[in-house]
Amino acid sequence: MTLTVSVLGATGSIGRSTADLLDQHRDRFRVGAVAGGRDAAALARVARELGAGFAALADPEGGPALRDALAGSGIPCGAGPSAVIEAATRDADLVVAAVSGAAGLAPTSAAIRLGRTVALANKESLVCAGDAFMRDARRFGARILPMDSEHNALAQAIGEGRIDDVTRMTITASGGPFRTATREAIAAASAREAAAHPTWSMGMKINIDSATLMNKGLELIEAHHLFAVEAGRLDCVVHPQSIVHALVTWRDGAVTAGLYLPDMRVPIAHCLGLGARLGIARGRPLDLAATGSLTFERPDEARFPCLRIARAALAAGGAQPTVMNAANEIAVAAYIAGRIGFYDIAALVEDACEAFAARCPAAPADVEEALAIDAQVRRWSTDGLAARAG
Amino acid sequence: MTLTVSVLGATGSIGRSTADLLDQHRDRFRVGAVAGGRDAAALARVARELGAGFAALADPEGGPALRDALAGSGIPCGAGPSAVIEAATRDADLVVAAVSGAAGLAPTSAAIRLGRTVALANKESLVCAGDAFMRDARRFGARILPMDSEHNALAQAIGEGRIDDVTRMTITASGGPFRTATREAIAAASAREAAAHPTWSMGMKINIDSATLMNKGLELIEAHHLFAVEAGRLDCVVHPQSIVHALVTWRDGAVTAGLYLPDMRVPIAHCLGLGARLGIARGRPLDLAATGSLTFERPDEARFPCLRIARAALAAGGAQPTVMNAANEIAVAAYIAGRIGFYDIAALVEDACEAFAARCPAAPADVEEALAIDAQVRRWSTDGLAARAG
Repeated sequence: MTLTVSVLGATGSIGRSTADLLDQHRDRFRVGAVAGGRDAAALARVARELGAGFAALADPEGGPALRDALAGSGIPCGAGPSAVIEAATRDADLVVAAVSGAAGLAPTSAAIRLGRTVALANKESLVCAGDAFMRDARRFGARILPMDSEHNALAQAIGEGRIDDVTRMTITASGGPFRTATREAIAAASAREAAAHPTWSMGMKINIDSATLMNKGLELIEAHHLFAVEAGRLDCVVHPQSIVHALVTWRDGAVTAGLYLPDMRVPIAHCLGLGARLGIARGRPLDLAATGSLTFERPDEARFPCLRIARAALAAGGAQPTVMNAANEIAVAAYIAGRIGFYDIAALVEDACEAFAARCPAAPADVEEALAIDAQVRRWSTDGLAARAG
Repeated sequence: MTLTVSVLGATGSIGRSTADLLDQHRDRFRVGAVAGGRDAAALARVARELGAGFAALADPEGGPALRDALAGSGIPCGAGPSAVIEAATRDADLVVAAVSGAAGLAPTSAAIRLGRTVALANKESLVCAGDAFMRDARRFGARILPMDSEHNALAQAIGEGRIDDVTRMTITASGGPFRTATREAIAAASAREAAAHPTWSMGMKINIDSATLMNKGLELIEAHHLFAVEAGRLDCVVHPQSIVHALVTWRDGAVTAGLYLPDMRVPIAHCLGLGARLGIARGRPLDLAATGSLTFERPDEARFPCLRIARAALAAGGAQPTVMNAANEIAVAAYIAGRIGFYDIAALVEDACEAFAARCPAAPADVEEALAIDAQVRRWSTDGLAARAG
């Protein structure tokens, strides 16, 4: 049976790995729709490669360029947010939601509200509006498959086990480029240094989040929603080799773990398989004897305060994760632009969390409300940065 | 619902850990029967503790001592092989088969032929008569739950996955006390030195098997039978910390693993839970940050030839594993008695495998045939040792 897969965020890193796998298993999949952000040429290339049924560019100005790039292919296309929603809601057995950032919320939500099976690689959906997303998934019968490496490893380690029997879920962190650096060295580091991720090749924003450990904080919040586990059972351990991605501790003391080499195609293949296991061409097998040593250490929240802040936001609940995520996006952008230092990221995020604790107490009821809070916090944070500079 | 559990080998190390857990969960279990080897007092103690419905001592001479020790308890008892069979076949939801050595075959087989669920900690059943045992289990609808730490970890790592999707099953070896020793030092080592197992506390015979790595060879043969995987997908890696017990590599490159601190109560609890997870009082949780480092290395078959011999027996199939196991028991006993050196164990086992390759080619059809081959090889090996000494 051929499965129809749509890929939102098809030109990003997850999207390209997904395309690689879909291409390797053409007998198994047909591609319903692909959606990209601004790069019309790249989107047209992947749409042609995969023989997609529809292509959507988020950038409303990109329509003509996309049409030109698809000329002669017979692939219908569109541009702007409504086109992306169309891509997300076309008939599909599986929607890969790999748009990054807040832009991923609306299309992911649209797919969930149609009861689709959604392979979720968009952190923001769960971080900003996790309660609403999971409620919608239950209400509309949508299945959410975690595609992030840590959450996918959690899903694999849990298997058919009962969440009630889990005493702890642990995700690992590479520790980032500053794992062994002193606080002084970290404080003085440039965004270029911070973005040099030791094991994964990712985008700039996520690399900075990885350096601050905010990335793990966001992932703990995601895990909370995906697996319906409370903050007290969620944990994070630093594991520089990034081979063990997650561990599940059971009531009887047994631990099951999900491991793989840092290659996003592995969790993607797990999601695409929908219970079956796909082969991956050109994938090296994990060889622990060749690896030699797997090391683990406790994260240092003194040097990496973003992890502490994210834990606090998770424990507080309500809109705190939404607020935190928005403030973090603004702060990281300012850090990348060289306007603030590394530890200013945490300071700004914490300020925002405090400022909005009373103003926006409740968890956003839906994506619209989440996006409204997001926009409000971004404005507040941007204004704060401007005032600071001025 | 109360489950009835019978424990064969109740006075051994696995049996005592099982008793500890049964005692912790009295609301959940009642004890059908307990069986022990020769220690009437110890057996009576565990029978009284657990309120067993029947107690059997394998030693036929031990009847009066057992009766005396149980006086006033109202627990019926018997001695000799038929009493052990009675213990194995009394009505039970779960039979823990933890008799060590060839003595475990007959009672384990009896339980399987009644279609019981059997938690198997007796290696010899599968090593000596694996084909017959697994055929019987299928024919009589018995379920076999692996209780050995490595196989239990494999079962946990496999979960509900399909064996066809597994590309590799890897069990770990502590490496034993000679992991880093030179061949010369190992050759000169006494049984006392060889029995000093670094992480697990076990019996003398199994400690020597652990030092020669024969133990891992036996476990690979067990895994072959338990999970119906061929030799080519089975692997072993040295992992001195004995925390990761087994890893399963899937077709898509993902690896799932079973981990726990060296505490046999963990796999025992997994078996006793029959799908549910039991809590374990007094069990420390695994803390990888405290552990720090997990290391892995390839086993060195030049220094540990027993592993190579066992792999060859597994690949050859037929009666070779039965022959190998019998010869190994005699050789290890001679080594413990100080009559032969460390590397003579491998030499004697290999001689026996060669000598019996043509004489006993086919896998034993049943337990009786396995025991007959076992006896024949033991005689041959004992005679060989005597001739050597003389």
